[in-house]
Amino acid sequence: MNDVLIIGTVALDTIETPFGKIENALGGSATYASFAASFFSKPALISVVGSDFPKEYVGLLEKRGIGLAGLKTAGKTFHWDGFYEYDMNEAKTRKTELNSLEHFKAEVPKEYRGIKYVFLANIDPEQQLETLRQMKNPEFVVLDTMNFWIGHKKKQLIDVIKRADVLLLNDGEARQLFNTVSLVKAANEAISLGPKAVIIKKGEHGALLFTKKRHFSAPGYPLENIKDPTGCGDSFGGAFIGYLAKTNDLSERNLRKAVIYGSVLASHNAEDFSLNRLRAIGMSDINKRYREFREIREF
Amino acid sequence: MNDVLIIGTVALDTIETPFGKIENALGGSATYASFAASFFSKPALISVVGSDFPKEYVGLLEKRGIGLAGLKTAGKTFHWDGFYEYDMNEAKTRKTELNSLEHFKAEVPKEYRGIKYVFLANIDPEQQLETLRQMKNPEFVVLDTMNFWIGHKKKQLIDVIKRADVLLLNDGEARQLFNTVSLVKAANEAISLGPKAVIIKKGEHGALLFTKKRHFSAPGYPLENIKDPTGCGDSFGGAFIGYLAKTNDLSERNLRKAVIYGSVLASHNAEDFSLNRLRAIGMSDINKRYREFREIREF
Repeated sequence: MNDVLIIGTVALDTIETPFGKIENALGGSATYASFAASFFSKPALISVVGSDFPKEYVGLLEKRGIGLAGLKTAGKTFHWDGFYEYDMNEAKTRKTELNSLEHFKAEVPKEYRGIKYVFLANIDPEQQLETLRQMKNPEFVVLDTMNFWIGHKKKQLIDVIKRADVLLLNDGEARQLFNTVSLVKAANEAISLGPKAVIIKKGEHGALLFTKKRHFSAPGYPLENIKDPTGCGDSFGGAFIGYLAKTNDLSERNLRKAVIYGSVLASHNAEDFSLNRLRAIGMSDINKRYREFREIREF
Repeated sequence: MNDVLIIGTVALDTIETPFGKIENALGGSATYASFAASFFSKPALISVVGSDFPKEYVGLLEKRGIGLAGLKTAGKTFHWDGFYEYDMNEAKTRKTELNSLEHFKAEVPKEYRGIKYVFLANIDPEQQLETLRQMKNPEFVVLDTMNFWIGHKKKQLIDVIKRADVLLLNDGEARQLFNTVSLVKAANEAISLGPKAVIIKKGEHGALLFTKKRHFSAPGYPLENIKDPTGCGDSFGGAFIGYLAKTNDLSERNLRKAVIYGSVLASHNAEDFSLNRLRAIGMSDINKRYREFREIREF
């Protein structure tokens, strides 16, 4: 039985960083998120690929036990071509070919509609809303997005935020969406829209979890070599909801732990291109790094 | 008996931020550092002011028990005129009038030469070296600097780094000095020069303490209103060494605590212009915020 539903993109990525280049590699928000979630729970994904999508990639997701009944096939796979400059903080886009994503309508297979944990990973907010409409009674909805939707579909995005339990944003997006330089103010504004919690992802600087009255600061993991940050935010979100679904405990204390597991998966993900690092690690690596996160913030 | 020696600047600052403006206010690296240190210990400062330096500012430092036997008077006081834009991350300089600082030669009064704890706050590295030469046998030397000296006196700065026990840098300076984007690599390079520890200050993102094999990540304090970040790094350094001098314990465990006390003073300092906030708080405010720092990183 699948216990986390994840809607987002499945993509073929061409990415260049100062440390190498990959072409047509497996990527997309739903891919990273479901792979990261699969360490803790049994995710199912809602997305679309084209007939050009390599069979081996489908096999890779299947082998992780990821439910693919909601993965449509139509036209050509969404393709993102981007690069990072030396500081690796910001993805720059060379080319975006929406392809099969352009006319994609989210359809949740019947067997997934009762899933309690829903992750609306980065994709058009209209399809995030559509997914929610089809779910029976989701208990816990986590929402991610990106600057493009804040700029182009803010109204629809606000509608989804109102229905989310946890909103994920990076620091730039938080400032952009709420038009303030203060992350505390941005978080308070977000919470006033409905979510019980807001998580602000700050890349190498860690992540902040804001609830109505409290605040948690997760450290960044001190990586010596960052090869490719693509998918770190998605891996964070996937691990976050995967851990919560596994433990089925939504206390603030457990949300904090979930933020650390999210940070663990994101930090691993940055160490190699595409899903290469996540494919190579196991629970012992994850638990080892979790303990390091404890150690580096102890005083 | 004074127990911390601090060399640095004493300045009259004209500062504009999006939240207000002050003219000819008390500032300077040695001022902020010694004021912050005075919550924990009895600092003495080495610096110079002009005959225009207001008596009330001298009185303010005296009343805090700060040793002023090493404060020379010559010409006109050093004056910095700067501003911050909306994001408050970077000080921009309108005008720097070195005045009496231009021909300043550090002279440590006899009664201070046996002090064990020395903070070389931001000033010309040649005067930092000169100060060290005059000290008898300093036990623990903390060094701060700024991008200007990295750009203009790198050789002399490296000489001081070799003699320091702890090097303080902000993240931009660390990357500039060691020509790498990785803060981990920058810290390792710094340690290979001699210091036992490197602290990388990241403003709102907190601070990192690197020792040879270990790493500590101090959270940033979630300030809703930042009025003026001037002097935050100096306040950090002053509180850091002040706490260490008070406890006289240089274990890594205690260095971590000192980093948190540094962060507490820096976060208070940002809440108002000049030394206004540091003048208004007491040990109970400091200890309250110290406990908050524990709480926000607990998982």
